[in-house]
Amino acid sequence: MNAPLPASRPAPLTAPRAGAAASRTDAARRIDASARLRGAGPLGDLADFPDWFAEHARRAYTRVERVGLDELDGWVSDPATGDLGHHTGRFFTVHGLAVEHPDAAVPRWTQPIILQPEIGVLGLLVSRIGGVLHALVQAKVEPGNANGLQISPTVQATRSNYTRVHQGRAVPYLEHFLDAHRRPGVLADVRQSEQGSWFYRKRNRNMVVELPEPIEAGEGYRWLTVGQIHELLGREDTVNMDSRTVLSCLPFTGPAPESDDDPDPFRRALRRSGDPAAGSLHTMEEILGWITHRRTGEDLATRRIPLDDLTGWTREKDRIRHEGGAFFEVIGVRVEAGGREVRQWSQPMIEPVGQGVIAFLARRVEGVLHVLVGARVEPGFTDEVELGPTVQCVPESYTGLPEGSLPPFLDVVLGAAPAAVRYDTVLSEEGGRFHRALNRYLVVEAPDGLDTTSPAHRWMTLHQLSDLLRHSHYVNVQARSLIACLHSLYHAG
Amino acid sequence: MNAPLPASRPAPLTAPRAGAAASRTDAARRIDASARLRGAGPLGDLADFPDWFAEHARRAYTRVERVGLDELDGWVSDPATGDLGHHTGRFFTVHGLAVEHPDAAVPRWTQPIILQPEIGVLGLLVSRIGGVLHALVQAKVEPGNANGLQISPTVQATRSNYTRVHQGRAVPYLEHFLDAHRRPGVLADVRQSEQGSWFYRKRNRNMVVELPEPIEAGEGYRWLTVGQIHELLGREDTVNMDSRTVLSCLPFTGPAPESDDDPDPFRRALRRSGDPAAGSLHTMEEILGWITHRRTGEDLATRRIPLDDLTGWTREKDRIRHEGGAFFEVIGVRVEAGGREVRQWSQPMIEPVGQGVIAFLARRVEGVLHVLVGARVEPGFTDEVELGPTVQCVPESYTGLPEGSLPPFLDVVLGAAPAAVRYDTVLSEEGGRFHRALNRYLVVEAPDGLDTTSPAHRWMTLHQLSDLLRHSHYVNVQARSLIACLHSLYHAG
Repeated sequence: MNAPLPASRPAPLTAPRAGAAASRTDAARRIDASARLRGAGPLGDLADFPDWFAEHARRAYTRVERVGLDELDGWVSDPATGDLGHHTGRFFTVHGLAVEHPDAAVPRWTQPIILQPEIGVLGLLVSRIGGVLHALVQAKVEPGNANGLQISPTVQATRSNYTRVHQGRAVPYLEHFLDAHRRPGVLADVRQSEQGSWFYRKRNRNMVVELPEPIEAGEGYRWLTVGQIHELLGREDTVNMDSRTVLSCLPFTGPAPESDDDPDPFRRALRRSGDPAAGSLHTMEEILGWITHRRTGEDLATRRIPLDDLTGWTREKDRIRHEGGAFFEVIGVRVEAGGREVRQWSQPMIEPVGQGVIAFLARRVEGVLHVLVGARVEPGFTDEVELGPTVQCVPESYTGLPEGSLPPFLDVVLGAAPAAVRYDTVLSEEGGRFHRALNRYLVVEAPDGLDTTSPAHRWMTLHQLSDLLRHSHYVNVQARSLIACLHSLYHAG
Repeated sequence: MNAPLPASRPAPLTAPRAGAAASRTDAARRIDASARLRGAGPLGDLADFPDWFAEHARRAYTRVERVGLDELDGWVSDPATGDLGHHTGRFFTVHGLAVEHPDAAVPRWTQPIILQPEIGVLGLLVSRIGGVLHALVQAKVEPGNANGLQISPTVQATRSNYTRVHQGRAVPYLEHFLDAHRRPGVLADVRQSEQGSWFYRKRNRNMVVELPEPIEAGEGYRWLTVGQIHELLGREDTVNMDSRTVLSCLPFTGPAPESDDDPDPFRRALRRSGDPAAGSLHTMEEILGWITHRRTGEDLATRRIPLDDLTGWTREKDRIRHEGGAFFEVIGVRVEAGGREVRQWSQPMIEPVGQGVIAFLARRVEGVLHVLVGARVEPGFTDEVELGPTVQCVPESYTGLPEGSLPPFLDVVLGAAPAAVRYDTVLSEEGGRFHRALNRYLVVEAPDGLDTTSPAHRWMTLHQLSDLLRHSHYVNVQARSLIACLHSLYHAG
């Protein structure tokens, strides 16, 4: 049972951790001081961003054509299993997974899943320019994106990429990340999971590396202030998933509470939430104990099976779909991507059946914003349970099921009064593997009196989530996106 | 390449983290204040411990008889694979493992390994009595121990234990741990690995739970101060492995440096090392980045194989042994354990071929003790690499190999001047699975001028290790034992 949080009269916070704001390392502390600065840096104002972005959108494009799963150049269906793989054995494989989860509403099922065991690099180069933290971002097209061009991190490379299986050109700026352990300046370097419903134990290395001086931004790259990127997070489908997950691994705090004269108590509470000196409803020991309890209590078992042995799924010429029309399809695409050079390739992709809802309920507790995290079990997680959003689902997948089967708090999120909706933006998931995987990301203030007692949920502050994000496998990719999105609310809009 | 540490002129520490001593949660902070108190508590003085211990040693005993692997009551060899398992499917299985580790000195091998997928509980109840932290320990016999009776934690239970597969009596005090997530008072609750060379991905839940008031110590149990347990860690083979690993998960710091009038600079540096306010050679971001680098760089692959398919191992009537006489044997034993009741059972056990050497090199850097941790790859680790001691090996296993194949720093440890050897005690590994698995645990001050540059080693403080011990899979069980042992040096002897 959860320690209940009285809805209208919050429990007192644990004693604020005096002096804890200073307990980060030097490097991170300096970020705390600079991240609140935003707007124009010496390398450009956000005002000319639309022109720069439009200019690249004209030159860079992808054309995506649906093709049969047996017509994908370079891809083969294993005759014994039906598994889809590249003839080189690299990139990724689509196979079947049998899941047993006795405690769940659906205690057993099978599904297709992507196996991509290589650990890639999602790397962001940052540098302080005039005391303001800047990051080197890329305008990148990916075939799955509805809005082709998005802001991506400096480097976004699978191991196949950088060992040149693609036989393309070298990955620009990659050397700064592969050599990072030899030098100071690593602000974050942690392996994090990706979609546990679609990937089997996929992990990417999320890295932020600081350079003493900015280096030249190549064609298609640009230095933006971190504040500018946060501002772009408020625009539909502009900042890609890889940027969001890397940014979530950086700790941020706003101005000291005593000098924070923002008239909006939500924004003040949000900034305090990032400050390790602020209190929290639960101690970190309680949170860690709860996670251990959830992880030892779940009897999840997964087993690889042949793609041909799925139950409840149909393989058609150009897709594998769920017989009930739920969840997602595996489709085949032929891609032409153009920019400075033109490349063509084919690949399978995953396309969800509907737009997902990914939301944090948020609540101010004694002036410190808390978000309601949910302990989620996803079959592809390396460690069975990770912390996710309050709500994470594709409502279409529940069509035809009894009313009570909808996830808890979905009704609260979708029925919230407009003033309670603090963030509401549609964003894409990773456009290299997922086709038109759009989710509606929301941050919603919980109504007074809402009972949030749930063994699978806990109220946490942003500084607690930041602490966990220094380590692998605690926070899932959807929650990491939401954490990045929360930063776009830091500044009076 | 490692950031080199000039041997005679250490690099300056990272800026001490001002105020960080106060950044622990309330509960843990209170331990910091009380752990330095030791000696007699209101529940007894260590002076009568030998009588109490001897009294229980008279009543409790185990008799262990070697028997054939096919004569183990309740155990069967799978006819298809030779794997040894209990007929109920519970407890554990001995199967084969094929390991490929291209970068290692031995790039591929096979070996027997224990599969015990259940997560057990190693739990310590603690309470403050007269302001001094006490722990409820048990005098427990286990068949593998050379010295039959040892101090064990309050609870030491496999899941088979507590779901009553043994059909024995209920595990005393277990309810305090299974319910811990419902109450405050959890000081530690984290899954940790055990011997990665002998267990395949085994994890136990290490828990410390504080009670507001001490409860009655049952027959065979006794409250000791944590300081007393630390003192017992200095005695040969007295505190068992499960106690050591649980104790290592508790943070401790000594008196404030300015009031520490200990004349011994090593002990002063040791106590400062546990204090989060003390500096460190590397920032935590650098340490975490190095761990991520090691973990993404290792191409370790393991594959379960039938026990009958081992290469280089021979199965005899009563054991499975390595043909070169190296490493360990799988043996069969019949056990009679007596105390208040008499129980008999049979089981396979692992018996190493020689006594191991497990050592930390230690160095004072600007008055803060650092230990040289090694990034170890063991085939049974859940996450490929964990931090281990500076040296961890069974020297007998290297017999016949060329001189240069001995592990780095073994010669330094074994050749140290007596004054440099700060801890040197033989301790047992877990006596429920391992037969006479004795290791010599050492803490040795590194000689001036020793070059410790190594890509697989880093100097770390105790407070950095304590931080990592709040999370799973960072610190291996041998290093955790050494961390517990270091606490026995906290007090002037």
